Amino acid sequence: MKLCQKHGLPIVPRGSGTNLAAGTTPSQGGVVLIFRNMNDIVELDEENLALTVQPGVLTEEIHQYVEEQGLFYPPDPSSGKISTIGGNISENSGGLRGLKYGVTKDYILALEVVLPNGDIVRTGGKLAKDVAGYDLKSLLVGSEGTLGIVTEATLKLIPKPFYKETMLAVYESLEDAAETVSAILANRIIPATLEFMDQGTIQVVEGYKQIGLPTDCEAILLIEQDGPKEIVEQDIEKMYSICKEYGALSLSKAVTEQEAEELTRARKDALSCLAYLSPTTILEDATVPRSKIAPMVREIKKVADKYDVRIHTFGHAGDGNLHPTCATDARDKEEMARVEEAFAEIFQIAVDMGGTITGEHGVGEMKAPYLEWKVGELGIEIMKAIKQAIDPNNIMNPGKVFAKSTKKRVVVSNV
Amino acid sequence: MKLCQKHGLPIVPRGSGTNLAAGTTPSQGGVVLIFRNMNDIVELDEENLALTVQPGVLTEEIHQYVEEQGLFYPPDPSSGKISTIGGNISENSGGLRGLKYGVTKDYILALEVVLPNGDIVRTGGKLAKDVAGYDLKSLLVGSEGTLGIVTEATLKLIPKPFYKETMLAVYESLEDAAETVSAILANRIIPATLEFMDQGTIQVVEGYKQIGLPTDCEAILLIEQDGPKEIVEQDIEKMYSICKEYGALSLSKAVTEQEAEELTRARKDALSCLAYLSPTTILEDATVPRSKIAPMVREIKKVADKYDVRIHTFGHAGDGNLHPTCATDARDKEEMARVEEAFAEIFQIAVDMGGTITGEHGVGEMKAPYLEWKVGELGIEIMKAIKQAIDPNNIMNPGKVFAKSTKKRVVVSNV
Ligand SMILES: Cc1cc2nc3c(=O)[nH]c(=O)nc-3n(C[C@H](O)[C@H](O)[C@H](O)COP(=O)(O)OP(=O)(O)OC[C@H]3O[C@@H](n4cnc5c(N)ncnc54)[C@H](O)[C@@H]3O)c2cc1C
Ligand SMILES: Cc1cc2nc3c(=O)[nH]c(=O)nc-3n(C[C@H](O)[C@H](O)[C@H](O)COP(=O)(O)OP(=O)(O)OC[C@H]3O[C@@H](n4cnc5c(N)ncnc54)[C@H](O)[C@@H]3O)c2cc1C
Repeated sequence: MKLCQKHGLPIVPRGSGTNLAAGTTPSQGGVVLIFRNMNDIVELDEENLALTVQPGVLTEEIHQYVEEQGLFYPPDPSSGKISTIGGNISENSGGLRGLKYGVTKDYILALEVVLPNGDIVRTGGKLAKDVAGYDLKSLLVGSEGTLGIVTEATLKLIPKPFYKETMLAVYESLEDAAETVSAILANRIIPATLEFMDQGTIQVVEGYKQIGLPTDCEAILLIEQDGPKEIVEQDIEKMYSICKEYGALSLSKAVTEQEAEELTRARKDALSCLAYLSPTTILEDATVPRSKIAPMVREIKKVADKYDVRIHTFGHAGDGNLHPTCATDARDKEEMARVEEAFAEIFQIAVDMGGTITGEHGVGEMKAPYLEWKVGELGIEIMKAIKQAIDPNNIMNPGKVFAKSTKKRVVVSNV
Repeated sequence: MKLCQKHGLPIVPRGSGTNLAAGTTPSQGGVVLIFRNMNDIVELDEENLALTVQPGVLTEEIHQYVEEQGLFYPPDPSSGKISTIGGNISENSGGLRGLKYGVTKDYILALEVVLPNGDIVRTGGKLAKDVAGYDLKSLLVGSEGTLGIVTEATLKLIPKPFYKETMLAVYESLEDAAETVSAILANRIIPATLEFMDQGTIQVVEGYKQIGLPTDCEAILLIEQDGPKEIVEQDIEKMYSICKEYGALSLSKAVTEQEAEELTRARKDALSCLAYLSPTTILEDATVPRSKIAPMVREIKKVADKYDVRIHTFGHAGDGNLHPTCATDARDKEEMARVEEAFAEIFQIAVDMGGTITGEHGVGEMKAPYLEWKVGELGIEIMKAIKQAIDPNNIMNPGKVFAKSTKKRVVVSNV
């Protein structure tokens, strides 16, 4: 770091490179620092329910390691099999359990970070409460490698839920599915998972996996609850009735663990399956308040029609975090222009609904021109001032988060 | 704000002034902005489980308001009857439910903040997930009025737990009480409340309240669990056995709600009662990893003996957040010097144990000279750079958080 600082050479930290926003592209040259092999599990502190790891440990390794001890690290991005914890921290990754358990930042107790000048700073501790000065830890989480390098992290663990049940609800109409989501939450149930796939996604996943998903319905919901057995059973029963009441065509509960695993896997593999459809896959994560899921999905469909592009949507219905995914071909310049316009319009609609341009994937280089739409000119100004304060020579992942220029807002009919 | 900026006049934002770190003392003159009367509840959004309020709303008003709707806002500082939500946000206040439910920052969805130059920035949204740029919201929470003024906040609500039970465990020895705390957590139970009072505190509280607390024991634990009835009953039963196993002299469950309320109130009023003891009360909130509670309480006693000062300790045992409280007299300069030395040594010991100088009360002016002990020179440097970036003329609550000079470390025997 000191050498790069001295020579003004860019540094691009990289875990597994699974981010979806060109966050690890060394577009201005420089050194790519890959952390995959800095992957020790340093310490499990059972008394303080804290796990200390190096940045290259894979998310799924962490899950397996702590679950063997009856403990639980909730954040579970679908990419967990290959993503690193350093990447998760730097993107503040979400996942399927975000609604009930929160996201990565909710589980970071302490960080060791190397600053752009080579100084090493430790922030946080094995503490449930700490208000000594500004919250540097939260500032670093989600900073996408633009402020410093995470070289060690202490994660908060919780007791592993005793029991889990998984069910699938199939809908003729999108609206029914969305209304079910609202009704579940209105009934004061917070399920561990509440995932959504639209028809296009279902068809593609079923095409590749053949696990018996119904391909003629408009939407399915994947619902999981975990916790003490009696409560899980009660909640699942209540949700079963709610799904029925709101028009579910069919409902099935996973009987074996393998069945449950298969259903969850199907949802987790949605993106990988969609990626087979075409040479280029563009996936976004426009996110809206959860009351707006139905209108948002409807708007995405309209936009896809308007620009004549193929967009399938799946995502975390429970927390309004949708993944409209476009199957396209980067070599077709004319189509790509339409795709870009379509996504710009989708971002705009999300922001107009009180949402954001990215719920869990980060800004990277791809979404940088849109950041201002969410945080405003002033927001950008403050963020830039912070960046300038910590990395005055802009050697940390330059070109990410902040764009040379902001994209012009598209004019969208009122939503 | 614009006028003050133009004239370089300090601004000290103030809620109810209940902070315990001289955080609202206008020690450099200027304008004190009091928010008590900017106290509208702006909107309850049941679909998105979000409550929008102005900064002057009292914490307890929020509790009452949302609980009437079957909803729950967990952060509950003992001062909730009089503290404002603006103060809670700016201190990132904790409370008795911190162990299970987290602290104020975990429940802030969005903020409207007026910056030192009069610009208005909105950060966050009614979103469970949002990673668009740096996390300005978390930076502002707990910034003690040194970065900007909170003029509106949107709080995250959760469903209200159905049921609650409260019990009291009495111990002959401090160690037994501390070991009980560890054993409860090791048994994978996370109680809603796990509070601790030492003998001195118990005697004072009982003296004023006369609710039948045993005054001849060394420590008591106040334990609460909430949630679905069957789970609460199971957990309380298990904790009952654990308390017994670890040597509780006596154990009592609150039978009526009033009894439960009285016990909780007794703990919440601990500070107010201690304040009657002497003309001056100095309360700190040195916090340690929860595995260190017993050694920490023991060290506090040793320090009190060493400097011949009167220190009683109570606090949030479950999250290692202790409140050593000194009954003294500010007019007695010689004693005050000893008190100061004693607390300096207590901070040092906490930091050496992997803890912090303040778990929930903030740095303010009083603890500013000690901040470096926790965050290091480099930590201070980064925080100052951020402060400089957002408030270049240092008009926002000057003299708070950052000290003119850092107190010299005391030499403490190894802990
Ligand atoms: C199939 C698929 C499914 C996905 N599902 C989800 C999902 O459900 N939820 C979700 O949130 N994301 C998801 N993602 C996105 C991605 O996997 C996550 O962002 C993940 O956290 C990235 O981890 P990584 O190790 O690949 O990091 P990388 O992509 O290598 O890096 C991500 C960012 O972090 C920075 N970085 C990496 N390591 C460090 C370090 N040690 N110090 C400082 N900065 C560092 C990089 O510079 C970059 O900005 C998915 C991606 C794919 C391909
Ligand atoms: C008896 C007693 C018990 C307590 N128990 C607890 C407890 O259990 N847990 C806990 O965490 N704390 C506790 N406290 C501390 C205190 O009550 C909290 O810090 C509380 O949040 C302060 O609220 P307030 O409205 O009095 O804020 P104030 O004391 O008026 O202000 C606190 C800080 O916030 C800033 N501020 C206030 N309003 C704004 C605004 N609108 N915009 C920007 N900055 C602002 C001020 O400048 C100051 O730095 C206790 C205090 C007492 C006296």
